[in-house]
Amino acid sequence: MITVQDALAIILQNKGNYRNEKVALQNTIGRVLKEDLYADRDMPPYNRVTMDGIGIAHAAFAQGQKVFRIEGVAAAGAAEITLIDKKKCVETMTGAILPKYVDTIIRYEDLNIDNGHAEIMVDKVIKGQNIHTKGEDRKKGSLVVPINTQLSPAEIGVAATVGKPHIDVARLPKTIIISTGDELVEVDRTPLPHQIRKSNVHRIKATLSQYLIDADIYHFIDDLETIKELLGKIIEDYEVVILSGGVSKGKFDFLPEALEAVGVEKLFHKIKQRPGKPFWFGKAKNAKGTIVFALPGNPVSSFLCTQRYFLPWLRASLGLPEQQLPNAKLTEDYLFKPDLTYFLQVKVSYDEQGRIWAQPVTGNGSGDLANLVEAEAFLQLPMGQNVFKKGSVHPLIFYRK
Amino acid sequence: MITVQDALAIILQNKGNYRNEKVALQNTIGRVLKEDLYADRDMPPYNRVTMDGIGIAHAAFAQGQKVFRIEGVAAAGAAEITLIDKKKCVETMTGAILPKYVDTIIRYEDLNIDNGHAEIMVDKVIKGQNIHTKGEDRKKGSLVVPINTQLSPAEIGVAATVGKPHIDVARLPKTIIISTGDELVEVDRTPLPHQIRKSNVHRIKATLSQYLIDADIYHFIDDLETIKELLGKIIEDYEVVILSGGVSKGKFDFLPEALEAVGVEKLFHKIKQRPGKPFWFGKAKNAKGTIVFALPGNPVSSFLCTQRYFLPWLRASLGLPEQQLPNAKLTEDYLFKPDLTYFLQVKVSYDEQGRIWAQPVTGNGSGDLANLVEAEAFLQLPMGQNVFKKGSVHPLIFYRK
Repeated sequence: MITVQDALAIILQNKGNYRNEKVALQNTIGRVLKEDLYADRDMPPYNRVTMDGIGIAHAAFAQGQKVFRIEGVAAAGAAEITLIDKKKCVETMTGAILPKYVDTIIRYEDLNIDNGHAEIMVDKVIKGQNIHTKGEDRKKGSLVVPINTQLSPAEIGVAATVGKPHIDVARLPKTIIISTGDELVEVDRTPLPHQIRKSNVHRIKATLSQYLIDADIYHFIDDLETIKELLGKIIEDYEVVILSGGVSKGKFDFLPEALEAVGVEKLFHKIKQRPGKPFWFGKAKNAKGTIVFALPGNPVSSFLCTQRYFLPWLRASLGLPEQQLPNAKLTEDYLFKPDLTYFLQVKVSYDEQGRIWAQPVTGNGSGDLANLVEAEAFLQLPMGQNVFKKGSVHPLIFYRK
Repeated sequence: MITVQDALAIILQNKGNYRNEKVALQNTIGRVLKEDLYADRDMPPYNRVTMDGIGIAHAAFAQGQKVFRIEGVAAAGAAEITLIDKKKCVETMTGAILPKYVDTIIRYEDLNIDNGHAEIMVDKVIKGQNIHTKGEDRKKGSLVVPINTQLSPAEIGVAATVGKPHIDVARLPKTIIISTGDELVEVDRTPLPHQIRKSNVHRIKATLSQYLIDADIYHFIDDLETIKELLGKIIEDYEVVILSGGVSKGKFDFLPEALEAVGVEKLFHKIKQRPGKPFWFGKAKNAKGTIVFALPGNPVSSFLCTQRYFLPWLRASLGLPEQQLPNAKLTEDYLFKPDLTYFLQVKVSYDEQGRIWAQPVTGNGSGDLANLVEAEAFLQLPMGQNVFKKGSVHPLIFYRK
């Protein structure tokens, strides 16, 4: 049995590498960038007008001129025009290229326009005002989005600006989620008195879908020979296998034995934590290096392990940095006797001092999946302590995106 | 010109109602539940064994018996068995239905099993231990997920458990995003010196896709009659129209005029904020009550308005409660002179006291879209103040999911 910290370290040491693929820009949200993006032009690419108004040569204003005859209009999307008479002005629209010989823009709010003339109604006009200078934000050739960035709308906008209709992103591992346990029936079935419907595979599949993995799902009956035969094929077909159930001490908990029989090396079994103690983690000695997360069958356990171990593993495998967890303060004293790291289900709130508070959602132990609905995060309470005082601070794992 | 608070109030007063649709459970992640979900059975549905080990009648142990002959096995998924001889035991597997006449489970860790007998190696055995009692978590008929909950993996797991392969969720509004401005060209084009590539529509479309809306995109040329004609058709076809650009004071900023001409009532134009001041919001007087968000063309402005106004409007329209924004502390003094609410781009970190810190990402004004890549949130600095001291606390709008 190992600690949470050691389990995380082993999992991160065994991150995968699933290569890259080129994807159309509109499908890249949430994906991890696998090329550096550079500015193909200066940003902005030209001296850009940032206010609707007029453009003048500042020297005329400096010599006391207040009224300027309008000799033309610079529209966005039109080629550069020229201010022919430097004692006159041109109307300039936001987004337009700055007309030649214009060095200053005065916005309409500070003008009185009448009969083809613009009168400047303010005393202070600074040379160069309301112009976004070519290359002011970024120079052509400069790095605008570095490799290994997770693509949010912000990066997608920049990728569009620099002309990338397709971009290289990290390929997602081919993944299967397998339930085990002869008591399980499908969601659309009416269970017999000793049966329950499958829920773990759906909860885990939904979690993976938030991270853009479209996992297959499957079910194993509790029979060692059948499991061995199927597992042997599955680890050749998939890069990641997530199992739920069958890893504890029960007579029909065949998975550790079956996994080792088909060449999956155990990297750890059991973590000093609740829920999720029986978690088994391994890696196949095959060409794919298939990674196996064999999670406990308890609903909250398998969910916690997905959040606390699978997702950090996935982030690392895709090339993302380790995530800094927020820390939250307990709203009340909490008692937990076993010498295990405890993942407490909590509701989160924010106060006026910039602090995060975590309120325990007290349920009926790790089997109470209905509690997950009321909570929104796990608070990670460390081992070696029984009483967690109100106001004490602990890492927070949000599970609602 | 109105305040941020008044703008938000008007937007929320004009929330839509796009009715419900029935969706297969595996496609409901992130959707908003539109029916109450009830337990169709007790949870758990039977007295459920929670540890692998043996089941006994506690009375025998209380009378001093330590060694129990094993007379059978209760497997998960098997029908209820009976402990025939109350001086013997049955092996019991996690998830199994509790055998008749068994009232206590002792885990394998506390047993020595040899030659068909189990010896109890601990002194303390509590009657009823390691049994998850029928209905202990929820009674049959009780509400397990209320209407208007956003479906996370937690709720999807519960929906599976209570037998809902299809569920009613809020339908998403039919939405179009329209760019304007003759300077814009497509992402795969090489722009002329006075042109730039479209980025706002891609940034906004990506944002909406995170909220599961698959928006159409379109472009208007800067021509009033063309815009009027197209807008007239579009507001009949779409429930939400998001425009970018054309709402300022420029000679070709035709949108406010065109929108009113086709029967879209202006609900406000301009907010006392930076970026995003020229934002125009309205509602069509048609059967659909089409909502129009006419955003400024500046990249950061249109993005901020999407985050700060469109998303809260969408949440309200789908039936979700208003979101409590986290508050964060400024890492340094920040100066902002204009009497406007300022949305400052910030990076976020968490300290050991449970606090959230916001560090300004100082760019070149609201046009600098490349800065969005370095930041991850906007910090909302209030009007009526110029100096924002280090350590002062303000609401935070995260834009990375």
